[in-house]
Amino acid sequence: MDTLDILRQLAIIIVAAKFFGLLARKCKAPQVAGEIIAGLLIGPSLFNLVEPSDFLAGMAEIGVIILMFTAGLETNISDLKKTGVKATIIACTGVFTPLLCGTLLYMAFYGFSAIGTETFYRAIFIGTILTATSVSITVQTLRELGKLQGELGQTIMSAAIIDDVIGIIVLTVVIGFKKPDADVTGVLLRTLAFFALAIVLGIIIYKVFKWYDNKHPHTRRIPIIGIAMAFALSYVADKYFGVADITGAYVAGVILCSLQDSEYITQKMDINSYIIFGPVFFCSIGLQTNVRTLDMTILWFSLAFVAVGLLSKVVGCGLTARVLGYKGHNALKVGCGMMTRGEVALIVAQRGLKADMLEPAYFTAVILLIIVSSILTPLLLKALYAKDPPEEAGQA
Amino acid sequence: MDTLDILRQLAIIIVAAKFFGLLARKCKAPQVAGEIIAGLLIGPSLFNLVEPSDFLAGMAEIGVIILMFTAGLETNISDLKKTGVKATIIACTGVFTPLLCGTLLYMAFYGFSAIGTETFYRAIFIGTILTATSVSITVQTLRELGKLQGELGQTIMSAAIIDDVIGIIVLTVVIGFKKPDADVTGVLLRTLAFFALAIVLGIIIYKVFKWYDNKHPHTRRIPIIGIAMAFALSYVADKYFGVADITGAYVAGVILCSLQDSEYITQKMDINSYIIFGPVFFCSIGLQTNVRTLDMTILWFSLAFVAVGLLSKVVGCGLTARVLGYKGHNALKVGCGMMTRGEVALIVAQRGLKADMLEPAYFTAVILLIIVSSILTPLLLKALYAKDPPEEAGQA
Repeated sequence: MDTLDILRQLAIIIVAAKFFGLLARKCKAPQVAGEIIAGLLIGPSLFNLVEPSDFLAGMAEIGVIILMFTAGLETNISDLKKTGVKATIIACTGVFTPLLCGTLLYMAFYGFSAIGTETFYRAIFIGTILTATSVSITVQTLRELGKLQGELGQTIMSAAIIDDVIGIIVLTVVIGFKKPDADVTGVLLRTLAFFALAIVLGIIIYKVFKWYDNKHPHTRRIPIIGIAMAFALSYVADKYFGVADITGAYVAGVILCSLQDSEYITQKMDINSYIIFGPVFFCSIGLQTNVRTLDMTILWFSLAFVAVGLLSKVVGCGLTARVLGYKGHNALKVGCGMMTRGEVALIVAQRGLKADMLEPAYFTAVILLIIVSSILTPLLLKALYAKDPPEEAGQA
Repeated sequence: MDTLDILRQLAIIIVAAKFFGLLARKCKAPQVAGEIIAGLLIGPSLFNLVEPSDFLAGMAEIGVIILMFTAGLETNISDLKKTGVKATIIACTGVFTPLLCGTLLYMAFYGFSAIGTETFYRAIFIGTILTATSVSITVQTLRELGKLQGELGQTIMSAAIIDDVIGIIVLTVVIGFKKPDADVTGVLLRTLAFFALAIVLGIIIYKVFKWYDNKHPHTRRIPIIGIAMAFALSYVADKYFGVADITGAYVAGVILCSLQDSEYITQKMDINSYIIFGPVFFCSIGLQTNVRTLDMTILWFSLAFVAVGLLSKVVGCGLTARVLGYKGHNALKVGCGMMTRGEVALIVAQRGLKADMLEPAYFTAVILLIIVSSILTPLLLKALYAKDPPEEAGQA
């Protein structure tokens, strides 16, 4: 591609993404949904102003690494420890129920297959996309309702975060199976080896960064070396351990998340993300989704996918919360709080595309799920909290 | 290029650029010099860890657009008006003396040629590289000496900025000559047409931005749409007017420089620049400079280039200042203040490389000039101000 043409494409992508992002927000849908739709419109599906290219793919790659690094940075380890046990149990059922239901859904549409076959992995991948809760919308809703600090709010938040971690491990294992030399033990061992290395290396890196950060607080060097580490860890994860590169970026973020300046790093990453890399990443998802390849089966599948995606989280997490001692309506709040999907679902889907485990057409289903869940969750949570008897308001 | 390999290369570029940038600063040399040397070391010249690629070229392109957009944003139009006339005259001689001397220097080395020949344009290009003063180091030195606000300081600063503008116009015209359909009148007309359009469009765009900025101060949308406009204007300038794309980016910055939030935009651009795009741009200059192609002629040429570059500014600007009524030692300060070169010289050189008007080997000369001038200017200015009789201290 001509370097000059890059400038034209970027100008179009940035303006379109921002415009449709704002439009989406006006319609109470998440901004990312608008950015993806912008990509659909300017791409080969419709106006053909921008074509997918190697250059844009590279930029999108940097974008997703920055997003996952930021997600890791925003992890609050001490909060996780507090609500730990209950949240972990809820998170586990919140991962495995949708994983199972999604897999079964795909098989119900396209036929049941034996373990190890191509279709089996594609089915499991559909389940994998359903695993990760997007905590951001839930957090925002709970904050608006003034319920973020209660025990219930903390549990939902912690569960959503742990759920991300487990989701990423599931993705790592599932993608690992697809590699040419895949054997179950090998994949599991390499994944374990990566996390073991990450813990050891992470503690050392954290200490070095902490020492440097105390010596020079708010220096530019911290975010600069931080992002370089995220790039390096992503590369090493994928190249030498067969672990998804985004896992490496996420781990890099978690390593630095307890740093005093972690918010400072997050800010700088955020600015890099929202100006150029974020719009390119989300638009390029739209660019890759060619609506001309959609057929009725996929449309029906998408609707079923949304229903299964929402219900499996509500039922999985809600029932577990009930068993753990929450009252019925509070258990329902946990379930609803856990059902939002966002960036991570998209990122997982995009990894599937790259690993040839997902057809581009299925992005429609993922985008639909994100839009529906992001609109539904705030409405449902508000309604559920409104029903609380007054004396209970403010408590878990 | 494999998208995964991009991550490896970026990690290396960012760490190397930061490390050598800091090292350069420790040695009182400008940070960019360190970043270029980092590129030399990791590139084909030495360790071959990173190879020049289309992807990196695209990233570097975005980097240079952001740099020039920021340079435009930092223009202070009301300051320019104040010290206007004197500064403009100094700037003009400060552009045309080095332009002439640089051209003659090249011809002295490689033979005199008729106007219109290949060698003639290459000679003029060497002169063009020498035109733009880098205001940043001079400003920093004057600020440290507490002399930035005096009349002399303001004159130097304004002259350096006007000098940038004239330098960019010269570049535009010179590059225009090289286009296949180049005729002098055509190039000048198209350049004029671009600036006319830029002024008309600029006023409209500025009004729209100002209205929006007053309505929503400090919104993210301003820098986002701003950078999109910079990309668009760069594309239009190059594609439809044959004007260098960086001129478009610079003009986009100037259009927004009087905005209340111009500093806010600059900040956001700066963060985007220093974390990823800046290091990639400066390193990629080093990557493209293969020291193995250097020979003795080029080394001698580089030394002469540095001498001519420094002296032509000191003499050109200094004499003009003397004629305009400044005392001898103050005129010398103006001359020394104007002799620093920086990013813009590199950017001009890189454009020459792209337009096939400059061999990569000449980067050595440019880099040497930047390093020498950036070290010499602060030392000379300090010495000159120290010689001031005490009663004059603090005055112009």
